[in-house]
Amino acid sequence: MSVPIVFYFDPLSPFAYIGSIAIERVAAHHRREVEWRPMLLGITVMKIMGMKPLLEYPLKGPYLKRDMVRLAEYFDVPFRHHGLKGVNSLAACRAFLWAREHAPEKAKPLAQALFARLWVRGQDITPPEAVIEEAAALGLDGAALEQALGGPDLKAALQSAVEQAVAEGVFGAPTFFVDGEMFWGNDHIWMLEHWLQHHSFRR
Amino acid sequence: MSVPIVFYFDPLSPFAYIGSIAIERVAAHHRREVEWRPMLLGITVMKIMGMKPLLEYPLKGPYLKRDMVRLAEYFDVPFRHHGLKGVNSLAACRAFLWAREHAPEKAKPLAQALFARLWVRGQDITPPEAVIEEAAALGLDGAALEQALGGPDLKAALQSAVEQAVAEGVFGAPTFFVDGEMFWGNDHIWMLEHWLQHHSFRR
Repeated sequence: MSVPIVFYFDPLSPFAYIGSIAIERVAAHHRREVEWRPMLLGITVMKIMGMKPLLEYPLKGPYLKRDMVRLAEYFDVPFRHHGLKGVNSLAACRAFLWAREHAPEKAKPLAQALFARLWVRGQDITPPEAVIEEAAALGLDGAALEQALGGPDLKAALQSAVEQAVAEGVFGAPTFFVDGEMFWGNDHIWMLEHWLQHHSFRR
Repeated sequence: MSVPIVFYFDPLSPFAYIGSIAIERVAAHHRREVEWRPMLLGITVMKIMGMKPLLEYPLKGPYLKRDMVRLAEYFDVPFRHHGLKGVNSLAACRAFLWAREHAPEKAKPLAQALFARLWVRGQDITPPEAVIEEAAALGLDGAALEQALGGPDLKAALQSAVEQAVAEGVFGAPTFFVDGEMFWGNDHIWMLEHWLQHHSFRR
């Protein structure tokens, strides 16, 4: 059994959403598994790198808004840019970690449901109630999740997950690791596939 | 005759250097011309976006250093990262504009010579003498260029070129425009080729 492809995501990133679907297809094509790991752009981009969210920069912001639309077209991913402000993914990431511990087979479906909620239906994922609703729809124990979301263990677990991401060099989402190489962004997926097939970048 | 592919470059960018070779091959394959236009990352990245040079950011800097090596491998471009500090491309960009006016057929070869000087031989392109040396080696009038580099006309011409780039939304290098779409970075070249062939991003 080969090592899984690692996929770092922040549920609030449209590019991570598009990448979440694209990487599963690439992995399936190459008979590889994908291990999903949450991270927080608020920590890596804003606190560690000292940048603003990339979409807020002049020139770069408008370009990225166009880029997400055409990437969604290319990867054939349903996508709609929501008009929500101040979306935060703390509850979403913590719920993913909770599901991974208590019902591992439902962790990825929960993250996928949260991505779809935000980036297809345009509904917020910030309130814990929204996250609990998606979890309950998957048959997870909403009351248990609600209690866990309010406690210190999940907070610590997410902090530790983000520290691990940073220790591996992750600064943005989506970030993929394939057999020792790190790839940031969907625009690198063609290079990722080349590496996956040849373990070399030369053609 | 179709509209040329537009290629915005700053000679100090390793990614623009790699892209300068990659885009000429793509264009030749599709029987298109490439129009080279200089820009200054110091203006777009630092002054307008308020960022540092991307290579100086924690996490992102080390990733980009690895990325340039594997992109050079993929595109089969000779590449060596120089250890020079504080490289500045004002004289190089001004000399390109001067050549474009006085010997248009030598403007692109001059930019290519400057890219090779910095990114293959690892020699500085900051001093006007270095730029004049490369120009003279191409048969351009070194004395006339030296005089022009000291004058106000070329300074104004470069300022106007950068303003044009910004007006078109350019914030980084390489940036390519193909039939109404803007592409930033070599990692977008596969998408650029798809657009070039199909005028759609859907597959």
